[in-house]
Amino acid sequence: MKTLHIDLGSRSYDIHIVPGLLDRVGEEIRKVCPKAKRIAIITDTNVEPLYGARVENSLEHAGFDTGLFAGPAGEGAKCATHLAALWEAMMHYGLTRTDAVVALGGGVVGDLAGFAAATILRGVDFIQIPTTLLAQVDSSVGGKVAIDLAAGKNLAGCFWQPKVVLMDPETLNTLDDKTFSDGMAEVIKYGCIADREFFAFLCAHPSRGEIMENIEHVLYTCCDIKRSVVEEDERDTGRRMLLNFGHTLGHAYERSGNYETWTHGQAVAAGMCAAVQLGLDLGVTERGEELRVLTGLLEAFGLPTHIDCGWEDIVKAVGLDKKGEGEDITMILLREIGLAFPKKMSKDGVLQNLKALYRR
Amino acid sequence: MKTLHIDLGSRSYDIHIVPGLLDRVGEEIRKVCPKAKRIAIITDTNVEPLYGARVENSLEHAGFDTGLFAGPAGEGAKCATHLAALWEAMMHYGLTRTDAVVALGGGVVGDLAGFAAATILRGVDFIQIPTTLLAQVDSSVGGKVAIDLAAGKNLAGCFWQPKVVLMDPETLNTLDDKTFSDGMAEVIKYGCIADREFFAFLCAHPSRGEIMENIEHVLYTCCDIKRSVVEEDERDTGRRMLLNFGHTLGHAYERSGNYETWTHGQAVAAGMCAAVQLGLDLGVTERGEELRVLTGLLEAFGLPTHIDCGWEDIVKAVGLDKKGEGEDITMILLREIGLAFPKKMSKDGVLQNLKALYRR
Repeated sequence: MKTLHIDLGSRSYDIHIVPGLLDRVGEEIRKVCPKAKRIAIITDTNVEPLYGARVENSLEHAGFDTGLFAGPAGEGAKCATHLAALWEAMMHYGLTRTDAVVALGGGVVGDLAGFAAATILRGVDFIQIPTTLLAQVDSSVGGKVAIDLAAGKNLAGCFWQPKVVLMDPETLNTLDDKTFSDGMAEVIKYGCIADREFFAFLCAHPSRGEIMENIEHVLYTCCDIKRSVVEEDERDTGRRMLLNFGHTLGHAYERSGNYETWTHGQAVAAGMCAAVQLGLDLGVTERGEELRVLTGLLEAFGLPTHIDCGWEDIVKAVGLDKKGEGEDITMILLREIGLAFPKKMSKDGVLQNLKALYRR
Repeated sequence: MKTLHIDLGSRSYDIHIVPGLLDRVGEEIRKVCPKAKRIAIITDTNVEPLYGARVENSLEHAGFDTGLFAGPAGEGAKCATHLAALWEAMMHYGLTRTDAVVALGGGVVGDLAGFAAATILRGVDFIQIPTTLLAQVDSSVGGKVAIDLAAGKNLAGCFWQPKVVLMDPETLNTLDDKTFSDGMAEVIKYGCIADREFFAFLCAHPSRGEIMENIEHVLYTCCDIKRSVVEEDERDTGRRMLLNFGHTLGHAYERSGNYETWTHGQAVAAGMCAAVQLGLDLGVTERGEELRVLTGLLEAFGLPTHIDCGWEDIVKAVGLDKKGEGEDITMILLREIGLAFPKKMSKDGVLQNLKALYRR
């Protein structure tokens, strides 16, 4: 059992990492929402049959009235239509300003439920109960909530910090291997950008079984890195961009597969390899074993280290399709494993270098 | 020319009240948004032909690229469908996180544009250019932005303070008398709740012509009262509720007419009279001339002092239709003209008293 405190002044909160916590969420939520009567539980049709009843029971034991809203699973649920339907459903349920919204599920549920909580009645209390590895190490921490637009992912949203994040590592046991690996890409990313020792730990435990034997340590370490970045830059105007390591090209790969061929984690995995290669080509990444150890670790978790994509997707991801946006882009590169830094480069320069990389 | 400073820490901003300001909005916005390249001007089809070109010209003179988005006029535009369309349109236009959104119009435009600004790309800079009296004295100040749901008005939204509020009193000259009077209800409300002297000033200038001769004083005084309330209670958890004087019953009247028969101002006017009568019946309002002078002033501006509505609308407005919401409601009553106070009452008690009032 581990607890982390995110210090954001009046928006501070704790992250609790406790096996079996799912049966005690009611009492934890009562601590942070003493006045709430009703809880709207937002989940999806994959998660509801697994954990819906346990969460409802725990909440009702703590004296809450509960309403459960299960939307379709998958990225498609993060849209304006579902958001509007949730708004109406929560009002129909009778939610008031002193009540709260719980997100029970993965990143999609957390983003959608968080945005709904941030905006219903101009904002009500919000609790994250992430059930996937990706959501536990990344999307449930930091307060970024959003839906997708036709124009792109996460384009409409808010910063809305949860009152508490409740992680039960046992929920990871019900993930299929692909979804588990999806989260491992972000776990490995934390090692790359901020913690060489943690990266070495992962290399020494290169399987799902070994990770799960140490899952509290893994979750704690990742959340602690995210904590330090978010505390310094809550609204994502500076240091928080380090978290985008692997994501610029990752977005190109995701788009090239129409967000279906490649999961977010797979795209980020290949994006990290490309970013390390870019750093090597530019002479800013140490000419050591960085690329070899990174690809080896990703492969151990079945993650891709290279993805072919159309050139126009790369041009879009670098932002050269948008006129008047300025000629520069900030790429996140590695000095070495455990030490990332932002490098402002001309978009043309990035593309020249990537062209060479893609011809290899 | 008058300027008011709203002190909300990092979210502080100025309100400028200047005749002819519409032709200088570009330079004012440049001061608060030094890095912005693009400005999305959100307006409606009533306001666009009157002021759209002037605002665009001024912005372009200040070096901004502008995109103008004119939706239909009227409360119907404050819906999830229009919000989603605006999100897509702003992305199509190429808005980035360092750009800004301008609301040019009345309260509906300000609420919709403000919510769009608060949520596009997780929030961009926002500027209010209110063109109706209601928007200038009320909705453009304080940072409440929202859309309506099927379940009720203003149910989905945010608190999102503008970077600056630019009021050109000359825009009031193009309002029809009914729309002008609509705003006068809120002007009179400020006198009732917080400024006996200002109320006397209004009584001494009981016509649109006399108000317009003193419009800068009127706008400044109203915004200054709202400033003091908002500074103390930005997120509407306490003192800000004084601004709801006349609004509980006002909402009943608006709903009874399906939001078409009665304007917001008309409903608030009659709601204030009912609240004064309630205070008299309860013996908390001074047994002086309060009701007589208030009804006289409202009538001078063509505002109703009594509206018949169905009992079920009153029950809903008081909140007795919602089970488990607690038995109490806070009504805003007057000690005397210029001094409002919140009074917690049982919902049943309120209804008993109103029943007597309605039998009169």
